[in-house]
Amino acid sequence: MPKVVKTTINVEGRVSEQFAIVEGAELPPWGEHEELGIVGYPAPRIDGAARVSGEARYTYDVQLPGMVYGRLVRAKQASAKITRIDVRKAKAVRGVVDVMTYENVPDIEMSGRQTRLLSDDVRFAGQTIAVVVAVDPYVAADAAALIEVEYAERPLVADPEAALAADAVKVQPDKPNNLLNGKPRIKERGDVAAGFAAADEIAAVTVRTPTALHNAFETHGCVAHWEGDQLTIYESTQHTFGVREFAAKKLELPMSKVRAVSTFMGGGFGAKFPGSAYTLIAATTAKRLRRPVHLMYDREGENLETGNRGQTLQQVKIGARRDGTLTAIEYSGISEGGAAMGWLPMLEGPASMMYRCPNFRSETSGVLTNLGPMAAFRAPGFVEGMVGLEAAMDELAHKLGMDPLELRRKNIPDTDQLEEKPFSSLPLDECYTRGAAAIGWERRSQPGSQSDGRYRRGIGMASQIWWGGGGPPAYAEMLLNSDGTATVMTGTQDLGTGTRTILAQVAAEELGLPLEQVNVTVGDTLQGPFGPASGGSVTTGSMTPAVRSAANDLRNNLCDIVAQMRDIPQNEIEIRGGMIYRRDQELASVREIMRKLGDVMLQGTGSRGPNPDDVSVVTSGAQFAEVEVDTVTGLVRVLKIVAAHDSGRIMNPQTFNSQIYGGIIQGMGLALTEQRIVDTERGAVLNPNLEFYKLPTIADVPQIENILIDIPDTKANSTGAKGAGEPGIIPTAAAIANAVADALGVRVGTLPITPPRVLEALDAQ
Amino acid sequence: MPKVVKTTINVEGRVSEQFAIVEGAELPPWGEHEELGIVGYPAPRIDGAARVSGEARYTYDVQLPGMVYGRLVRAKQASAKITRIDVRKAKAVRGVVDVMTYENVPDIEMSGRQTRLLSDDVRFAGQTIAVVVAVDPYVAADAAALIEVEYAERPLVADPEAALAADAVKVQPDKPNNLLNGKPRIKERGDVAAGFAAADEIAAVTVRTPTALHNAFETHGCVAHWEGDQLTIYESTQHTFGVREFAAKKLELPMSKVRAVSTFMGGGFGAKFPGSAYTLIAATTAKRLRRPVHLMYDREGENLETGNRGQTLQQVKIGARRDGTLTAIEYSGISEGGAAMGWLPMLEGPASMMYRCPNFRSETSGVLTNLGPMAAFRAPGFVEGMVGLEAAMDELAHKLGMDPLELRRKNIPDTDQLEEKPFSSLPLDECYTRGAAAIGWERRSQPGSQSDGRYRRGIGMASQIWWGGGGPPAYAEMLLNSDGTATVMTGTQDLGTGTRTILAQVAAEELGLPLEQVNVTVGDTLQGPFGPASGGSVTTGSMTPAVRSAANDLRNNLCDIVAQMRDIPQNEIEIRGGMIYRRDQELASVREIMRKLGDVMLQGTGSRGPNPDDVSVVTSGAQFAEVEVDTVTGLVRVLKIVAAHDSGRIMNPQTFNSQIYGGIIQGMGLALTEQRIVDTERGAVLNPNLEFYKLPTIADVPQIENILIDIPDTKANSTGAKGAGEPGIIPTAAAIANAVADALGVRVGTLPITPPRVLEALDAQ
Repeated sequence: MPKVVKTTINVEGRVSEQFAIVEGAELPPWGEHEELGIVGYPAPRIDGAARVSGEARYTYDVQLPGMVYGRLVRAKQASAKITRIDVRKAKAVRGVVDVMTYENVPDIEMSGRQTRLLSDDVRFAGQTIAVVVAVDPYVAADAAALIEVEYAERPLVADPEAALAADAVKVQPDKPNNLLNGKPRIKERGDVAAGFAAADEIAAVTVRTPTALHNAFETHGCVAHWEGDQLTIYESTQHTFGVREFAAKKLELPMSKVRAVSTFMGGGFGAKFPGSAYTLIAATTAKRLRRPVHLMYDREGENLETGNRGQTLQQVKIGARRDGTLTAIEYSGISEGGAAMGWLPMLEGPASMMYRCPNFRSETSGVLTNLGPMAAFRAPGFVEGMVGLEAAMDELAHKLGMDPLELRRKNIPDTDQLEEKPFSSLPLDECYTRGAAAIGWERRSQPGSQSDGRYRRGIGMASQIWWGGGGPPAYAEMLLNSDGTATVMTGTQDLGTGTRTILAQVAAEELGLPLEQVNVTVGDTLQGPFGPASGGSVTTGSMTPAVRSAANDLRNNLCDIVAQMRDIPQNEIEIRGGMIYRRDQELASVREIMRKLGDVMLQGTGSRGPNPDDVSVVTSGAQFAEVEVDTVTGLVRVLKIVAAHDSGRIMNPQTFNSQIYGGIIQGMGLALTEQRIVDTERGAVLNPNLEFYKLPTIADVPQIENILIDIPDTKANSTGAKGAGEPGIIPTAAAIANAVADALGVRVGTLPITPPRVLEALDAQ
Repeated sequence: MPKVVKTTINVEGRVSEQFAIVEGAELPPWGEHEELGIVGYPAPRIDGAARVSGEARYTYDVQLPGMVYGRLVRAKQASAKITRIDVRKAKAVRGVVDVMTYENVPDIEMSGRQTRLLSDDVRFAGQTIAVVVAVDPYVAADAAALIEVEYAERPLVADPEAALAADAVKVQPDKPNNLLNGKPRIKERGDVAAGFAAADEIAAVTVRTPTALHNAFETHGCVAHWEGDQLTIYESTQHTFGVREFAAKKLELPMSKVRAVSTFMGGGFGAKFPGSAYTLIAATTAKRLRRPVHLMYDREGENLETGNRGQTLQQVKIGARRDGTLTAIEYSGISEGGAAMGWLPMLEGPASMMYRCPNFRSETSGVLTNLGPMAAFRAPGFVEGMVGLEAAMDELAHKLGMDPLELRRKNIPDTDQLEEKPFSSLPLDECYTRGAAAIGWERRSQPGSQSDGRYRRGIGMASQIWWGGGGPPAYAEMLLNSDGTATVMTGTQDLGTGTRTILAQVAAEELGLPLEQVNVTVGDTLQGPFGPASGGSVTTGSMTPAVRSAANDLRNNLCDIVAQMRDIPQNEIEIRGGMIYRRDQELASVREIMRKLGDVMLQGTGSRGPNPDDVSVVTSGAQFAEVEVDTVTGLVRVLKIVAAHDSGRIMNPQTFNSQIYGGIIQGMGLALTEQRIVDTERGAVLNPNLEFYKLPTIADVPQIENILIDIPDTKANSTGAKGAGEPGIIPTAAAIANAVADALGVRVGTLPITPPRVLEALDAQ
């Protein structure tokens, strides 16, 4: 019988409280009494061939009879009222079947980035103002160019610091000071003034991080298809069930009549949570036209409208006693939210919880501008906040004359200072020790002691903390087929991270089947029970215990069947490697037993149990960077990154490495090359593309050594695994910035650390 | 915990024994203590709008990126060895990507209709000998016409009676007498000779029934699509899981890597069980080309190759005492199997079990010819066998001077004479009484007493018996969504019969939700657990108890959740109309409770329990026909059909009526207009189309009155429902033939009763 459990869940720093229903008995954690053979093995991805061969069907690839293609039309102005929109020429193009504007789109109230599906109120350049639907995408694009728009231009503000001025233009009429919630968010513990008074040394830094664009390989978009009163939405999303819930709510449909599908995904990085206008435009247009509607963003639209990591300006002040004990941290930061901002990333997260410090105060603000809206982006707030915190820590170590690593080691927190609970596991010391050994920390120069040659090398490091333990609600089912192979049925999704593969490993391990006999469904609300959003690194921590629970239930059912068929006690039956044993005596293969049963299918169900009340579950780690700076050109080259992260048990070293590598490469982009460039006069983004927005390429990627810490977090959940999606990116930019400072003896406080900024810093030095 | 149950299952007269796994407690049957509100209501089909609007996606409608289209090339000869097949011109056509013949198709051993995927051994005209694959279907068709084939012709036999001659051509080299299994099938009970000796009157008839073509609106075919090592087969099939099992076995794939999909189906009538060569050709070609392959039959190919109801020649002899008590039945029949025959339809079924008779003997044979192969066709054997049996019964009544209905009523069996068990329910007497009243049986003339006018009217009737109780294995799951709506997850399929709708009714009834809040999945091996083949009228009897069991499990889980949330005893909670009550006090709606729980999903699982050991479960009934014969033109017009069938509880009068109406119309075709016409010299089918193969049209359909008997068969299963797929067609042709004999005073023994045959009979009279 199911149990009701009240639970809190942490998605990207946003804590929400809800009930969960838990089915089945809680399993004791692995690792205390069992040796695992499949979990922990670096199995290649079970869907790897489908992905690399082009056979995997992504949302973009969906084709349906009679399908029409939508093209999004974007505003050219950053702040204006549309006075006239003339679609007649577009509609006259042969093959165009419909054009939607604010004049004819359904009036559905939205929250978040848009208040209506389409509006005449333009708040940033690139805002979707019309959708052309045609029989093929090229016709739609040609017709879109024929739409004539007249604007009544309004003043604009496209710089967050300018937006804070008392006489600044108002981005949203009801936000007089352009601040999210009208005021800064303040967090405080202890007595900061007293803390600074007790300090022997105080370091203060100011840093800036750029607006970064997600640039998932697959853009946002969906295909909407009605069959009678039933709606199917194929969508590139981080929450398949969320798309169903969103569409059902906004369109006033029963959830049972809405199906959401996202079987293959080309990345999300936090921007692909459900709730966007395009989904509803596609669904309502498909209903009206009685034809499926394919509506995908192109790269330009993706980079203008679907979200970004807003630029920050941060000031961090830290005080410490002579021995390095921190006495106070004061943090202040602003984060740009663009024209709409639903929530403020937790910029102050690292400063508040990374190191033990009794006296803490933070003041953070979200600032509106006439630019594209922010969205969650892989460890939102933490990536930026870690740059500020770790710059200050290095400066503080310098002032104290301490090794920066020793300063950090001295201040490893013994409890979660936000939740006031001990950690379930926090092997930060091991991460520091092994990472330092791998980078050769002892080779690090004393700050400022660098040679005067053209090429200067430096080593820096930064720490990481994040959640990622997951929690309920998360469900799974398992089916054992009549040939002894098994299918794990889940409603989670695989963003490209390898979720399918590790869930197959968990099921095979628990059930005693070879991995190749197990398959996994993801990304279809009709192919498995509710799965949580894949964001905040929760998928592994939420889904692996649910799958293990379902596999255990199936295993018990199978043992019971064998017991009945062979008339032996159930508790003497074991399953290993697809064979069934009575103690050590081989009875039959699972396949033979199932074949004997004929056309049957054995089921198991499971769910994620509640999180422990008495501990806080986090991931932690550190990265170490070695860089070489060309003092003539100002170019920074990353030579090596060493990563050492605790994500509990490593389910699959290969997919774990991929997550960490990906995070590091994305972090490198933020540190050195990536930045949205804006003409602040016009509010125009100059590089919403892959030509002038400089993502790292394979040629930029340094040697990366990822140290597998691999300590099962047995207090966290029954698999002991935690997420790895966010951790890899959190310390990278901070570590690189510190390595550059180490190389140069002077800090480049503004990211990305471009050659002009390096040269400017050297000049100032 | 699941239980293992050994079970027998009757699919279209073929009994097989297997194990089943049953989960959950057996539920007491409905109706003994409950009043039902949703089950029994004539709800419109929940997928009706999708089907009639053209939005429902059938197999033919599947489109995938890079998909290519296959075109089947058919043999022109009926018996030949291909000596040369030249595909060069076809391959040279721009857009053709591949051509498969026996020379390059994978060598996979088949059973049933074909021994290899493609062969140079041609055994009937229309046999697929090549498949052209091109980028569009028109290119493929054009290219197919360019394939050059040279044949070494062989002698042929295209008439089943000729095939029985000692010196007949051999259709299959290893079958010297052209008989399936080399000999007739003989069944015997009692002492037939003694029985005839004890008879006061003996009637003997000879009847012939034609070869009939299924002509489902949707032809056979599939789309095969690989994603890496995972195969998806969209197929128009009566057994979605069977397609998966078949493909996995033949292609040596784990079942967990194969998905079969058949979400919407355009009819099957018994011909669409898995196991055909085209599925494997599509799958292997798609693998080789790395492109999805769309391979559908056209109408001509459908009617030549995918199966038929073989023509029969039957002789039936029945003896009775003066009072009408039957003393002996002797039955002999041959059924044409075409070039391949996997099994022999149970022609003798009606004669052996319809009426109580202690002395019975039958001899039935399947005869091979150089014509397209037979396949199961809605009540295979029973439709044909009932024509013979009921003709003999009418003749016997005439000889006895008895009312034919009274003769039948007198011989209603008190046990199942095949299984030697009592019936769970056999309300034949009620069917006779109510049917006779509705047709106005008392208006029936005495045979031969008809007026001599041009238009002569007659009334006839015939009985029906069939299985249709279903059985395990059949499974279902239910999910309750966070808005209080529910989804029934099944792996069964809806052939167009309304399965989705009645399963939704069962779930809504058991769970206490309004019907519109419940949806049902069918036809996808990844959207629900194993479901049995939809054939033999088993779907309702198998699936409704499984769904009820899952709904009951979900209901218990929901009550348990409410009990925990409100701290009240679980057994005081009731759910009705979407509301939750504590006894009669309203607590909250299901929706409110689920909303309070947040993003959760509540599950329930269920399965079909075992059939009772001590009773035999059958459906039974009768049909009454009134006809008018034009003695100048010979045209027979059906004026009215009255049907009275016992299928246990009627789940939905509307879908039940549709099944019976459809059976009657199809039976009318067999009686009056449908026949495959063969040039027996060449072995050529002259009408493999809808122009010259005369299906009844709406203009031919008479008044049909279907009497709802609606007696829950509480011994059969927990819903008391049995199938209605076969029953409707079984007595129709027999009743019409008897009505014509009643009108004319002379029997037309050969079906269809065409105008020339009527005129010939009148001439002979």
